[in-house]
Amino acid sequence: MLQNIRVVLVGTTHPGNIGGAARAMKNMGLSRLVLVDPRIFPSPDADARASGATDILEGAQVVATLEEALFGCRLVLGTSARDRSLPWPMLDPRASGEKVIERAGEGAEVALVFGREHAGLTNEELQRCHFHVHIPSDPTFSSLNLAAAVQVLSYEVRVAWLAAAEQGEASRPASAHDAELATMDEMEGFYTHLEATLVAIGFLDPEKPRHLMARLRRLYGRSEVERSELSILRGVLTETQKAARGEPYKRKDQ
Amino acid sequence: MLQNIRVVLVGTTHPGNIGGAARAMKNMGLSRLVLVDPRIFPSPDADARASGATDILEGAQVVATLEEALFGCRLVLGTSARDRSLPWPMLDPRASGEKVIERAGEGAEVALVFGREHAGLTNEELQRCHFHVHIPSDPTFSSLNLAAAVQVLSYEVRVAWLAAAEQGEASRPASAHDAELATMDEMEGFYTHLEATLVAIGFLDPEKPRHLMARLRRLYGRSEVERSELSILRGVLTETQKAARGEPYKRKDQ
Repeated sequence: MLQNIRVVLVGTTHPGNIGGAARAMKNMGLSRLVLVDPRIFPSPDADARASGATDILEGAQVVATLEEALFGCRLVLGTSARDRSLPWPMLDPRASGEKVIERAGEGAEVALVFGREHAGLTNEELQRCHFHVHIPSDPTFSSLNLAAAVQVLSYEVRVAWLAAAEQGEASRPASAHDAELATMDEMEGFYTHLEATLVAIGFLDPEKPRHLMARLRRLYGRSEVERSELSILRGVLTETQKAARGEPYKRKDQ
Repeated sequence: MLQNIRVVLVGTTHPGNIGGAARAMKNMGLSRLVLVDPRIFPSPDADARASGATDILEGAQVVATLEEALFGCRLVLGTSARDRSLPWPMLDPRASGEKVIERAGEGAEVALVFGREHAGLTNEELQRCHFHVHIPSDPTFSSLNLAAAVQVLSYEVRVAWLAAAEQGEASRPASAHDAELATMDEMEGFYTHLEATLVAIGFLDPEKPRHLMARLRRLYGRSEVERSELSILRGVLTETQKAARGEPYKRKDQ
């Protein structure tokens, strides 16, 4: 199931950190690396720090946007060092490892997202995550090296995986539940639809958005929307848009 | 209590790893670094990778031998990647973090020992440790970067420390138990005495030592010998040596 887990590095500046991350992943049995708009890649510095994990670097997928990196994912965890203006559902690394293994064991695609060396993930990027992960660090010196952060989370994933394997859960069949979870790209389509609808009905002022979409992303992300639920939500939006355009609708009793 | 914990790096080849280890330590609230015979230190590479943890590098103690590095310690954990000919009491990183915090919370000096980049710790060095720690890694690619290994264990120490602080154990007074544990240097004196005695009585053949001292170190290390027990053992050795020299002894009933 570990092959269902991808590590996504966003906007990495130093290629050495990409290599260090690849080594940490391979040490922990992870293999799928996705790089969003890296400044320099491939690079001899990355190869040197990978120290034998070059297969992971060679197989790395390079994409332009986080949205592409998350295509097909049903669970996305984003690392966050800072307190945010908009609090998000948080997991500590241990609970993250357990959740990742639970979902991956059900057959779902899962992403662990890591931000830029100095700036981390943007608020917009963090709002694409179901959960935020904070590695507990000394408040006076809190910023981990990128590869070190990948090491800690990959380690917790491995610990959870070993525990699940010991309990025989690693080999259980995919649960009915997870097969129904919406993917990230389906959710993105929904959010685009939702935003357009809210604008159409005059609830969302594009000039003064007031974190509205972020709050809605947080809400739906936390609930891990099922595919069948998403169909319902999309249906509601379609009907709402019709109403906003002044199209008539038929009540059943008419 | 975190100031009771020292990180000991033995025979480090690449100064960048010393810097990375210092950063990982500081992120997790640890501050005491001891370097045993580093190839290159200080170094601009170490400073660069430390990324602000230069106070730890500046305060680092450089010594010639592991024995000096462990002076005064009552608990020593050594990282080990390999299966050894002589199996040793093992802890996983989580249990290590808990044990370190338990002992440090009692006021004891504790050491986490990390070996050379390619060769790890020697058998002799590992035999100076009470417990061995193995970071669970993929058997096909098991060797972690040195700074990454320091990161994982420092992280587990911090997690255990936070848990203890939450339970209010961080501030409890030192227990009577720990104050009585023998220090590493006292134990070394005992092992020297023991070995000499075993040779004197003809039990240990210096030409064919057969791991005997290692087995005895493992035994006493595992039991975490108390100071009062050590006095008894030393007394036994002294008397045994006298006997080996043919000195008469007086029975109480004589």
